[in-house]
Amino acid sequence: MQKALPIITFALLAATPIGAQERPALAPSEIVAAAPKADWSAIAPSDLLVMDLASDTKGKPRRVVIQLMPPPFSQGWVGNIRKLAAARFWDGLSVNRVQDNYVVQWGDADGEDKAKARKLPGRLVTVPESEYVTPIVAAPVGAMPKTKPALANLQIFDIYVSQDGSDLLRGAGTSGFSMGWPLALLPVNPRKDNEDSDTDVTGRQVVASWPVHCYGMVGVGRNLSPDTGSGAELYTVIGHAPRHLDRNIAVVGRVIEGIEHLSSLPRGTEALGFYKTAKERTKIRSVRMGNEVFGLPAYEYLSTDSESFARYADARANRRDAFFIRPAGGADVCNIPVPVRRVK
Amino acid sequence: MQKALPIITFALLAATPIGAQERPALAPSEIVAAAPKADWSAIAPSDLLVMDLASDTKGKPRRVVIQLMPPPFSQGWVGNIRKLAAARFWDGLSVNRVQDNYVVQWGDADGEDKAKARKLPGRLVTVPESEYVTPIVAAPVGAMPKTKPALANLQIFDIYVSQDGSDLLRGAGTSGFSMGWPLALLPVNPRKDNEDSDTDVTGRQVVASWPVHCYGMVGVGRNLSPDTGSGAELYTVIGHAPRHLDRNIAVVGRVIEGIEHLSSLPRGTEALGFYKTAKERTKIRSVRMGNEVFGLPAYEYLSTDSESFARYADARANRRDAFFIRPAGGADVCNIPVPVRRVK
Repeated sequence: MQKALPIITFALLAATPIGAQERPALAPSEIVAAAPKADWSAIAPSDLLVMDLASDTKGKPRRVVIQLMPPPFSQGWVGNIRKLAAARFWDGLSVNRVQDNYVVQWGDADGEDKAKARKLPGRLVTVPESEYVTPIVAAPVGAMPKTKPALANLQIFDIYVSQDGSDLLRGAGTSGFSMGWPLALLPVNPRKDNEDSDTDVTGRQVVASWPVHCYGMVGVGRNLSPDTGSGAELYTVIGHAPRHLDRNIAVVGRVIEGIEHLSSLPRGTEALGFYKTAKERTKIRSVRMGNEVFGLPAYEYLSTDSESFARYADARANRRDAFFIRPAGGADVCNIPVPVRRVK
Repeated sequence: MQKALPIITFALLAATPIGAQERPALAPSEIVAAAPKADWSAIAPSDLLVMDLASDTKGKPRRVVIQLMPPPFSQGWVGNIRKLAAARFWDGLSVNRVQDNYVVQWGDADGEDKAKARKLPGRLVTVPESEYVTPIVAAPVGAMPKTKPALANLQIFDIYVSQDGSDLLRGAGTSGFSMGWPLALLPVNPRKDNEDSDTDVTGRQVVASWPVHCYGMVGVGRNLSPDTGSGAELYTVIGHAPRHLDRNIAVVGRVIEGIEHLSSLPRGTEALGFYKTAKERTKIRSVRMGNEVFGLPAYEYLSTDSESFARYADARANRRDAFFIRPAGGADVCNIPVPVRRVK
């Protein structure tokens, strides 16, 4: 876990107290639509993985666009995935598993059979389990822009974020957003000189962080520990967030367009949702990096440290638009999906 | 809200401290499979709603089985649904909306058009919004069976359970299970003589409770407040739990079998996932109460106050079976689905 610690400023989510706004207020989607251009961040095509499935029964194309995670998260696996795409590894393989309220998985259906398995490209790295968690340094509250209320009511308590065996009732950490991604955040004590401190010698808070399994997130299939998966076998979440997989499997990205081509596939009838017969599988025509795909639209995400995102997150947690009679007063990190759209 | 308060004993979930068991331990599914017969509770066929959709493109039947909520929850709407089924209201209507990571909705596609709408049966009641929440009385901890550890580490903190405008950061309530259902639990103060008390004069804890929107739960579509919906328009959740709908829409049941026939339907391309054309809709052949359906299997659920359920819930929150290297230390209420099966 000892490595260079990039400095990341966390968005401290703002929330206007209930009653301070007139009802009906804007819906989350309206806040996103009204966000100024400056609040959007471009996604580099070279960070996209474009999977074209065989056309559907009506001949319609089925394209799934995946955004890969940025550094410092899961980069060993992300690097492997880039090599696999460059080697055209997935072309002609298939979607082999669709388990309701859980995952859709694709890769080599014969991957476990050494005689039949497609050969993996060379130069893939074996990533250690320690890489499921990344130590980062968060800016102290005092370093936040003055326009944002500090530590507002939407820094999200998260029951899945705790040390092993401690604080099981209430957890010890929170979740939040950084660089456009939902992350778990667990304070750690980096100083030997002060047992109670969770800041380093410069006063910055040190946090153990990991990407979380929300709907649409993409992870790396693996065998039993100590295997961590190469990245050749991938899945995406199509149900309630299976957060028990956090810190147990690598999260490497998220589907930003076309998830319906995976989530609406027929469920497999064998154990774990695997298809019983080969003909039930959906064929993968090709997987390419976005910069290799001619005519691919440009995509952007709502910057998670923007005022617009803070208002959007608050509105997700406290719906005050016309349909709602009672705001919830909170939202879990997976119920605040980061808005992503095609650049207009 | 002042009404007779049924006494309900809450399951206080047990959890064995991490390290107290050898690894690998049983998986949640193995705990369920090993549960003694006495830990299962029968579901009355008269509490089931059986929806037969038109056969799929391969001619296979598509049956969806829904369990309706028991008293004291949502009974105004549940009563309407019984009348609608008796009147054959849904026969020949359709699934009209499939929104990815949200809901599938069925009913009368022409319901908003007075000239074309199918006539509702008489005697349907208009249920007030106050019925979204139900006051109940929970047994004090001392009344729990001695075999169960009191207030173990899995009484679930829930960020969605709070009073309006208070305790937004951490909520004030929890969620748990009773009578086989996931419920939100918010202590209320029923006594005028003691401002700090959340027990009534007999020492029982008084709790405001409501059913929660987990994957597969069934709710009642409605128009803008003060409309609460009749029950003629129903939906089920097919994505991450949309808990912001809690206390805003009535939850009346859950799909216990066949949800894949709804969750794998093509997504609608219009706003909110409505289908653009009538031919995209899936036809409903019939909806009947379970006691009217010849040959329907018997179903049972794992009693939520059983030792087996406590162990199952603990295992969901702390996976120690072979695949996992790190237990989460917690689980949200929707990540502990109540096991339901056909009676063997």
